[in-house]
Amino acid sequence: MSEEKQKIFKPRPVSGYPEWLPEERLVELRWIDEIRSVFESYGFCSIETPSVEEVDVLVAKGGDADKEIYALKRLHEDPDARSDARVALHYDLTVPLARYVAQHYGDLVFPFKRYQIQKAWRGERPQEGRFREFLQCDIDVIDNDNLSIEFDAEMPAIAYEIFQRLNVGNVTININNRKILQGFYSGLGLSNVIEVIRIVDKMDKIGPDGVGKLLLDELRLDGEMVAKCLSLAKIRTNDSSFVSAVRALGIENETLDEGLTELEFVMNALSHIPPGVVFADLSIARGFDYYTGTVYETKLADYPDFPSICSGGRYDNLVSSYMNKRLPGVGFSIGLTRIFVKLLKEGKLDIGAKSPTAVMVAQLPESDRALAATTAQQLRARGINVEMYHEQGKLKNQLRYAERKGIAFVWFPPVDDNGMHEVKNMATGEQVTADIATWRP
Amino acid sequence: MSEEKQKIFKPRPVSGYPEWLPEERLVELRWIDEIRSVFESYGFCSIETPSVEEVDVLVAKGGDADKEIYALKRLHEDPDARSDARVALHYDLTVPLARYVAQHYGDLVFPFKRYQIQKAWRGERPQEGRFREFLQCDIDVIDNDNLSIEFDAEMPAIAYEIFQRLNVGNVTININNRKILQGFYSGLGLSNVIEVIRIVDKMDKIGPDGVGKLLLDELRLDGEMVAKCLSLAKIRTNDSSFVSAVRALGIENETLDEGLTELEFVMNALSHIPPGVVFADLSIARGFDYYTGTVYETKLADYPDFPSICSGGRYDNLVSSYMNKRLPGVGFSIGLTRIFVKLLKEGKLDIGAKSPTAVMVAQLPESDRALAATTAQQLRARGINVEMYHEQGKLKNQLRYAERKGIAFVWFPPVDDNGMHEVKNMATGEQVTADIATWRP
Repeated sequence: MSEEKQKIFKPRPVSGYPEWLPEERLVELRWIDEIRSVFESYGFCSIETPSVEEVDVLVAKGGDADKEIYALKRLHEDPDARSDARVALHYDLTVPLARYVAQHYGDLVFPFKRYQIQKAWRGERPQEGRFREFLQCDIDVIDNDNLSIEFDAEMPAIAYEIFQRLNVGNVTININNRKILQGFYSGLGLSNVIEVIRIVDKMDKIGPDGVGKLLLDELRLDGEMVAKCLSLAKIRTNDSSFVSAVRALGIENETLDEGLTELEFVMNALSHIPPGVVFADLSIARGFDYYTGTVYETKLADYPDFPSICSGGRYDNLVSSYMNKRLPGVGFSIGLTRIFVKLLKEGKLDIGAKSPTAVMVAQLPESDRALAATTAQQLRARGINVEMYHEQGKLKNQLRYAERKGIAFVWFPPVDDNGMHEVKNMATGEQVTADIATWRP
Repeated sequence: MSEEKQKIFKPRPVSGYPEWLPEERLVELRWIDEIRSVFESYGFCSIETPSVEEVDVLVAKGGDADKEIYALKRLHEDPDARSDARVALHYDLTVPLARYVAQHYGDLVFPFKRYQIQKAWRGERPQEGRFREFLQCDIDVIDNDNLSIEFDAEMPAIAYEIFQRLNVGNVTININNRKILQGFYSGLGLSNVIEVIRIVDKMDKIGPDGVGKLLLDELRLDGEMVAKCLSLAKIRTNDSSFVSAVRALGIENETLDEGLTELEFVMNALSHIPPGVVFADLSIARGFDYYTGTVYETKLADYPDFPSICSGGRYDNLVSSYMNKRLPGVGFSIGLTRIFVKLLKEGKLDIGAKSPTAVMVAQLPESDRALAATTAQQLRARGINVEMYHEQGKLKNQLRYAERKGIAFVWFPPVDDNGMHEVKNMATGEQVTADIATWRP
């Protein structure tokens, strides 16, 4: 290192790669803990996949993300080395899940219930809600051949519980079923159902008029058909009354019936969630064409223009690229970084202490270092986070350090044989004697 | 996706990127939790830095790691884009820490105590104990101008507590002080101290004879000097008696005195750790030339040939590449992946359940879905991980599922109004009535 000492770099952030101060990171860490705890409370196991997958797989699955894939390249590539596979950083956690399930198929027990809290990378132009490195929290359940619709109903309950715990303000969870859209459009006599879904999916951005215009101009639907499509998309209920509203539009189709039955089941199963949260919203389409049934989107109620913070749905076959088996699944993905950055900017996060320390053991000139160490160790053994102030500075400086880090209590071990332990509450300034065997923060 | 359905990929691991089955991941996750919990119990805060840093910084600091750096490259680079900085994946957590401290200097409170549990990447040829992606657990404390020697003594205590909790078998923590080596060699009249240290550091691999030969041949030391160097390196004590052993070699030097005083302080402060763990080992050098005082190495006692699992030390100036400030620090890094893979291969890990679920709620044909859901929710509210069996399969299949996943209890909600909750212990087969408000796994 010594040779480079002369060279001075400017320490600067890399655009699109967020990084937090300790006090912000403490909140992010609490979020991750809460999400994990809810996932596990429903019996989902953690997996982690490597940060990379083979380039070919990522490209084949990438769709629009293709252009945004970051490949790895050794700075000084050994030309003889054939050992370096062509790999790239994953841009989501679904492609890795599919590879994982196919690769370890024989070692997994189905239904396979996994969660995955990991970074993903996309070479996007940084803008609001978009990052080059971001944390995703995915949960999915996958089974052989068939997967109970009850899992479709469990997913929004899990999401709701998480957002309650994260304290992100009100959310709305909007649910639809692709079979309703597919069946309805087929029943209307439309053949290019995927195209219709792609256009209706823009409702959020261009509104009903914009969608209607595109259906007329691009797909050349007649006015009546467009009106029916828009009527369907307008249906949004917080119970199962959407069924009669769809029926009133007079379209008959088997797939439509299936979709209505499934969504009705899901809505009924979620009736324990307080009103104003869960909606059957027949405008929701989700751009990805691999969803085949239930689809979810979640919005922060206070920021209606902000993109979905938690989306997902049901797909028919996770591993079609790898195996000749039918493995349907359902799941969702929480865009943790996106939500965290939004609420951080809006000043809505409860940013507090800069340290996990609950108690700082002070060092007075007359105090015994060994006794201070034993004191700290006794408190730690009782599950309390304790740090010792290791510099023998003035008491004023020690208290100032505790205050600046947001440490709530400062501990004073006895200075002589007859002395007592004392503890100072930094918020109130009160200092009292304390029993080290029973005291709690 | 539909167009690519035809293309079939072989799902295969990428060499050098380890990945675990759920039951293995559960153990890894427990390890991470334990490490984090010990770090926090000593008042260290978590930070996370991006996976990438600027290439120039990584190369300047890389030393031998230079050749192993993975740069990121967009698959389809936009030739107009100047926005993509030249970035590469970090190969350790020290370079990012230095950049972080320099960049956020004004927002941090010193002594700054941070831990960082993150992946790092190196383009190494995969071999035992070497991976291309691996998890490092780093802890460091950094202060302005001076940093108390008490932190040097705290670090091995933290490491010891962690390895106790991880249950990795016996470890030995070997400690030295670079000032002892530097002072001793200077006192011997040697000028190329760094070169001597570099050679003595090979003791582990080539033994005293090999080291002696290199000192004779490469550095042209005379036989008496070589004998002194080897005598110093042979000193290894589990208390502060190393001081008199060094004194007996008759070298007088101020830096040597400082080093002996510091190491003596550290050894005395660690006297509460049971014998056989902590050693003053004067052969330890640590290859990196930025260590300036205390250095640590930790070995698995059962695998003496396996490389160090936890190393570190004290350095004089973390941010010299960025700022004209003196920020000394001390810390260590646990190579989690390396240890985990070794013990996994040796069959020493306590691999158990494939799921975090404690209780599975069964579904009998006659049982009420709503009651089953309420039951699960009540147990979850009491902090128990509960999953519902959502397929209405035969009871035999449900029990088999629980057994295969290692779920310890299966719960049967009452099937009629007069019924009682019952719970089956999967290990004993015993099934008893249970009070849902008080039952515990």
